[in-house]
This record gives sequence, C-alpha cells and structure tokens, in this order.
Amino acid sequence: MELLHRLCQIHAPSGNEVLMKEFLLHYVQENQASWKVKPQLVHGKGFQDCLMLVFGQPRTVIFAHMDSIGFMVRYGKQLIRIGGPVAEAGYKLVGEDSQGKIECTVVENEETGALSYDFDREIERGTELVFKCDYRETEETVQSCYLDNRLGVWNALQVAETLENGIIAFGCWEETGGGSVGYLAKYIHETYGVTQALISDITWVTEGVQAGQGVAISLRDSLIPRRSFVQKIIKIAQEANIPHQVEVESAGGSDGKELHYGPIPWDWCFIGAPEDHVHSPNELVHKKDIQAMVDLYKVLMQKL
Amino acid sequence: MELLHRLCQIHAPSGNEVLMKEFLLHYVQENQASWKVKPQLVHGKGFQDCLMLVFGQPRTVIFAHMDSIGFMVRYGKQLIRIGGPVAEAGYKLVGEDSQGKIECTVVENEETGALSYDFDREIERGTELVFKCDYRETEETVQSCYLDNRLGVWNALQVAETLENGIIAFGCWEETGGGSVGYLAKYIHETYGVTQALISDITWVTEGVQAGQGVAISLRDSLIPRRSFVQKIIKIAQEANIPHQVEVESAGGSDGKELHYGPIPWDWCFIGAPEDHVHSPNELVHKKDIQAMVDLYKVLMQKL
Amino acid sequence: MELLHRLCQIHAPSGNEVLMKEFLLHYVQENQASWKVKPQLVHGKGFQDCLMLVFGQPRTVIFAHMDSIGFMVRYGKQLIRIGGPVAEAGYKLVGEDSQGKIECTVVENEETGALSYDFDREIERGTELVFKCDYRETEETVQSCYLDNRLGVWNALQVAETLENGIIAFGCWEETGGGSVGYLAKYIHETYGVTQALISDITWVTEGVQAGQGVAISLRDSLIPRRSFVQKIIKIAQEANIPHQVEVESAGGSDGKELHYGPIPWDWCFIGAPEDHVHSPNELVHKKDIQAMVDLYKVLMQKL
Repeated sequence: MELLHRLCQIHAPSGNEVLMKEFLLHYVQENQASWKVKPQLVHGKGFQDCLMLVFGQPRTVIFAHMDSIGFMVRYGKQLIRIGGPVAEAGYKLVGEDSQGKIECTVVENEETGALSYDFDREIERGTELVFKCDYRETEETVQSCYLDNRLGVWNALQVAETLENGIIAFGCWEETGGGSVGYLAKYIHETYGVTQALISDITWVTEGVQAGQGVAISLRDSLIPRRSFVQKIIKIAQEANIPHQVEVESAGGSDGKELHYGPIPWDWCFIGAPEDHVHSPNELVHKKDIQAMVDLYKVLMQKL
Repeated sequence: MELLHRLCQIHAPSGNEVLMKEFLLHYVQENQASWKVKPQLVHGKGFQDCLMLVFGQPRTVIFAHMDSIGFMVRYGKQLIRIGGPVAEAGYKLVGEDSQGKIECTVVENEETGALSYDFDREIERGTELVFKCDYRETEETVQSCYLDNRLGVWNALQVAETLENGIIAFGCWEETGGGSVGYLAKYIHETYGVTQALISDITWVTEGVQAGQGVAISLRDSLIPRRSFVQKIIKIAQEANIPHQVEVESAGGSDGKELHYGPIPWDWCFIGAPEDHVHSPNELVHKKDIQAMVDLYKVLMQKL
Repeated sequence: MELLHRLCQIHAPSGNEVLMKEFLLHYVQENQASWKVKPQLVHGKGFQDCLMLVFGQPRTVIFAHMDSIGFMVRYGKQLIRIGGPVAEAGYKLVGEDSQGKIECTVVENEETGALSYDFDREIERGTELVFKCDYRETEETVQSCYLDNRLGVWNALQVAETLENGIIAFGCWEETGGGSVGYLAKYIHETYGVTQALISDITWVTEGVQAGQGVAISLRDSLIPRRSFVQKIIKIAQEANIPHQVEVESAGGSDGKELHYGPIPWDWCFIGAPEDHVHSPNELVHKKDIQAMVDLYKVLMQKL
C-alpha cells in the first residue's frame, strides 16, 4: 500500500487541493495503460482544482474528496482549525511559508483551549499547517493521519483499474462543508444524466460499527438518503457475500450533503471503512474493511 | 374528514415517502373525474418519490410535504430521531421489520435523555418507527399525530377539486431539512416559468397566533420572504374576508427555506393552520382554521 | 461623502430592499453620463428587488448587499431581530406603520434579555424598525449605523465611475443568510461566463486587522475560498502598493457563502474596510481604509 502512504503525505488542506490534483493526474496518466478502460480526464477551466475520470457509459459516480483537515496561522502565534482536527499538545505539524519549510508542534492553552504553535520563529499569517505523516502498517491495520480521506481516494483508484462504466470525481472542501460537489454534480448530471452516487469516504468505529467487521453502508447520518436506494445496495452486498455493517447515526455528514440539498434528484449512499482515532494523526483502519470496501465498490459499479 | 384520518395513518417518515406517494397517486386517479380540471401527473424517473399535479396554465405552486417525523432503531435497543419528534415515555410507535409488524412504546432514560423502546423482541437495526395514529375528532377540532403535514396535503387536495390553473407539488424530506424542493422548483421554473409559491404546512399556536382565530400567514420565521409578496397575500385575505392571523416568528423553517436559498427568484409564503402539541401524537387543530386555510388557498390560486 | 450619508438613512432591512434599489437605480440614471462607460441595467421581473450594472465585457463581478439589520415587532411590545443587530437599551429606532411614522427606543429585559420598545402607542405587528441614523464624520473617520454595508455599496459606486469591464451586483438578504446571490450568480454565469467575484462588504477590527492600516483581504472566515485566487489578489495589492491587511478568521460569513456552496465554480474573495462597533448604531471606519478599498477594487477590476 505504498500508494496510500504517498497519498497521506500530500499537502492538501481544504481550499488548497492543487497538489493532490496534480499527483492524481500524474498517477492516472502513468497507470491508465494497464487499466481495463482508459478514462476521459475532465479538469482545468471550470473545475477549479477538481479532477474527474469518466469511464465508458456511466450510470453511477464515486465521489472521493481530496482535501484534508489541518490548521491555519491566525495572528501572532495563534492557530485556527481547517475543518475539525483533534488538537493535542505535542502533535507535529508541517507546512511552508516564504521563509522556508516548517515543522512545529501544537500548544494548547489549558484554560482557554486556545491553540498556538511552538517553533523557533514566527510563522507568516495565513500559513497552512497539516499533521506530519507517521505512516504505520501491520498485517491487520494501517495507521496514519489523513486516512480520511486518502483511503477513499485510494479505494477509487483501485476500482478504476477494472472499471468499465462509471465516473470517479475527486472533489475539494469536504472537510469545511463542501464547495465543489455542487458544480461537479451539475456537470455530471447535465452531461451524462447520472443520478446515482456513492460517497467513498471513511466513517467512525462505534458500538455498532466495529473494526474488522466489514465496510460500513450508511443508512443515515445527520441526513437520510432515499431508503429504497440504500436498501438496494445492502441487498447487493448481501448477495455478493461482501462483509458489511449497516450504519445508523444521527450526526455527521459527507459529500452526500451537497447532493442531497442540490437541485438534482440524486440517489446517494455513503460507503466506507470505519476508522478509530478520527481526525487525529493516528487514524486506524482494519485491512479487512479496506478490502471489503474495494470489493463492494467494484460490484456496485457493475450492478447499480 | 375520513380522508385526513387515512392520510394520518400512512407510514412515510422522511426518506421513505413511497407509500404516501402511491396513496396520493391512486386518490387522484380515482377522484379527478369530478374535479373542475383534470391535472397532468408528473412523477417517476427524475422525481424520486415526489408527485406533482399540474392544472391548466400555472402561475403559482403549492408545496405540501408528504413526509413525517419519527424514530429509527440504531444499535441494540437505542432509538434516534427522524426530524424533531417529541418523545415521552409511553408513546406508542408502530413499524415493521423482516420479522413482522411492530407495536412498541418509547422509553426514556431519565438521566441521559437517551431513547429506547420496550418490545418483546429486538427490532432490526435501521427500522423506522412512527407514532401510532389515534385520530380524534370533535365538532370543533381534529387531533392526531401527523396533522403536520397530512393536513397540508389534505388542504391541497381540497383546493385541487376546483383548481383551474396552478401546480400542487407533494415533496419529501421536509422534516429533516429538505432534499426534494430544489429539483421540483427547478423543474417547475424551467417548464412553466412559475416563481410564486405557497407553503401548505402547519404552524404553532403561540401567544400571537391562536386556535380558532384563522389561518396563519407568516411574515417571517427564521427566514424573511420578500415583504411585498406577503403583504399582497395579506391584502387578498382581507379583501376576501377570510379569517387570518399574521405570524411573526424568529425561529422555525419550512419548504420555503429551499426556495429561498435556491438559484431561482421565488416569491414564497408559508400559509397554514396553527396547531397545539406540535410534533407529538396529539397534534390539535381547530376546524375553523382548517376551513380558513382551504378558503384562502382557493382565493390565492385565482388572484395571485 | 454626502452620498454615503444618504445611503445610511435609507430604510432597507432584509426582505424589503425596494427603497435602496430605487435609490440606486435613480442615482445611476442621474450620474452615468459622467462615467467612463454607461452600464446596462438589469433589474425587474426575475430579479426581485436586486439591481445589476453590466459594464463592457465583464470578467469579474462585485457583489454589494443593499440590506441592513434591524428589528421587527412581534406580538404586543416584543421585538425580534432582523439579522444580528446589537441591541442596547436606549438605542433609537425608526419605522412606519399604517398609523404613521415611528421613533421609539429599545428596551431590554435585564433578566431574560428579551427586547421590546418604548413608544406612546402600540406598533402594528410585523412592522420593521431600523437604527435612526446619526452620521458623524471627522477628518479621519466616518461613523454611522449601516456602514455595513452602505459603504460596500458606496465603494461599488465609486468604482463604477471609471469601470470599463465588469459587473456590479446589488443584492438582498445578506444579513439573514442570503437569498438573492444564488440567482444573480446563475444569471451572471450563464449570460457572461463570469466566475470571479469580489465581495464588497465591511469586516471587523480585530487584534490582527486594525483601523487605518489598509483594506482587509480575507484569506478565510467560516469558509475558505480557493487559496490560489486570494493569493493572486494579495499579489496585485502588493504590486500596486495599496495598503492592505490579510485577514484570517474562523468565524463570520458573507455573500461569498452562497457563491461557495452554489453549483458554479466561483473564485471569490471578501475585500473590505474593517469597522469597529460592528452591527451597532455607531459603526466606525477609518477613511484611509475606505480609500484603500476603492483603490484596490479599481485595480482588481482591471487586472483580474
């Protein structure tokens, strides 16, 4: 899973996904010769830093967000959050400003909870900092910052190898509430008439969704997608004997939110491996769940 | 009001409105022969579980949401909410899973407020439960779960009988923040150029809006629709001598929200009878207010 | 700055911007003969109470919201807020109902924080009240209610005098979360293909953005616009030697929000003078920052 390790190290906090987009574009160009179908690449003017791969005659789109959570330097030594990262004193952050590369640590004011950094110089206002990647792999698990959502991106790239008909859309800003899925969805719907979407993202280990027990199929989070579509997916997973867990939550959200509220009748479903230590530098996912995730996406892109 | 009673019993929590849509489709097909104008029925592919009736040359659309609040089984015996139902210990809930029909009661943990159910077996994860309908009618009032919004739907069906020009749009997901009005609005605007909308829904009895004093015309809730449009409606109500009350609230929302924020210049207004015991199994509405609601909608669909 | 003084006195709370629209329409018609380019005026049917000025071949649009915060009479003597005004006991409010003109004062219940008014008669339900304008100008500063956003509107009118290519869009409802930028953006994008937007609005004086130190260019507020676009703007400001301050906040929002979440790939940036005493009758802005704001907009409309 060397590819996953590389993905986890790319600097791409929400609003600045350009390095991820360039990496993926390069990866696709290097690897597509060995894929079953060579996709059409959609990007550039009108798509900001997003990238879409269109295979054959698509009926379903996979959305995988490229951006990560992180921090931004406010004024003086203050840090504010990009999205919702866990921030414990001592976490290592990396970034770069005009004076050069930065590796600093998080400091938390115990009374106020206010965040700042410890570094040997002042960092320029507005500089983005992300978790330093400490990638760890065992026989059973992978652990790193940013498995959410580099694993969702990685999953899409595995599916791409044998995909005949479908779209993979790599989007931006998911961690800060969205901002690209609206126009990607519009383009996809207007160009291909597609209204089925799978959200390739990572969810939480909970009392009902456990590590190693299969990929999670979400019946709901803070939003409730159309029930008949999710039930169709659960049935396909059952028939294909792919390990899966039905998730039922009242909180949380994903790229599905922009589809749900947008002016297109999307049927959408969040499907992803669960992780522990969410939004920390130590996100942990079981390899069996990753395998189930890839397997289920491959089947769904054929059967839906 | 036997029709209202039947509507209140239909299982259609947000995300699973298919039974309501089928009931309404059947009802329209059975009854439209006696209507002044036979509407065009718009539904099926591209409209999920929504249904629209188009009469003549429409200038105004009535939105009435079909979905209801309810509960969903999470893990073990836990219940989570669909929308914002009141949950008191002892409330009766009904539903169905693969093992059969269910009638259970709500249990509330007094310390944590966490909800669960009391039933003689474990209910399957993800099962939807709704209030058991106890429909009560007096000379002056109706009382039942789900008057919000089966009464808004019923109102639209009364208006349909004599409607010559206009659209009735039965939508989904209102109780969980919306999800269908966006695409219904887009279709309506693109197909018919309509930009006037009335929200046929039920509001709250408050110190300023009282039972039996007339239909409420909302000047604002958490959102403020264009003032000149609402004032035009108030003027029409005054001239027609229809009992009405101007509502002014800083909280609450409706299908109007999706119109307001969407990319179409909608003039919209929430108009509905007020109810007491909101979002409980005992929603109570005064019959005079229901009559005023139907009367006002009939006039507005002619004069706007 | 007599024009600014007049703008600050116009009654135009969110949802009822018609008087501002009429004032601006009249102003443009009176003054455009002396402008470098005479703009096309877009308004009326399909645009509610909004107004757009289209100059030459536009590449960039300036959004300036016309609406203000204020109060609305609820039931009895209760006041509720329109947007987020500061409400201190004794603030003077003005408005009008069918019984005539009103000048009253804010009363605050010390225990509950509930707002009401002191006036010699009861004011009609639903009446809008706004701050009474007390416009104060020194050599260095202007102070008044509603500099947010009459100053943003004023800025756009200064830019209009020499603008050759670009759009100025005067919108509604910003103070209550939006409601017009969606359809203005759609029209602009579909008609002119424009995807660059500047938000002409007023921000806050903070520890990092100070009065008299230049116009604020916002790298982020609660949302993060595309970083490469904001950096391009900062570079242009640097090269033109225009006093500016980079703002980095985790809260707040603007018309940029509707662009960000909408289905068009907008590059947008909030650029505005900072003010003290935000959302009170005493909003205070430094004239140097106003000058820098106008200067930067003029350069950006040429170079972007």
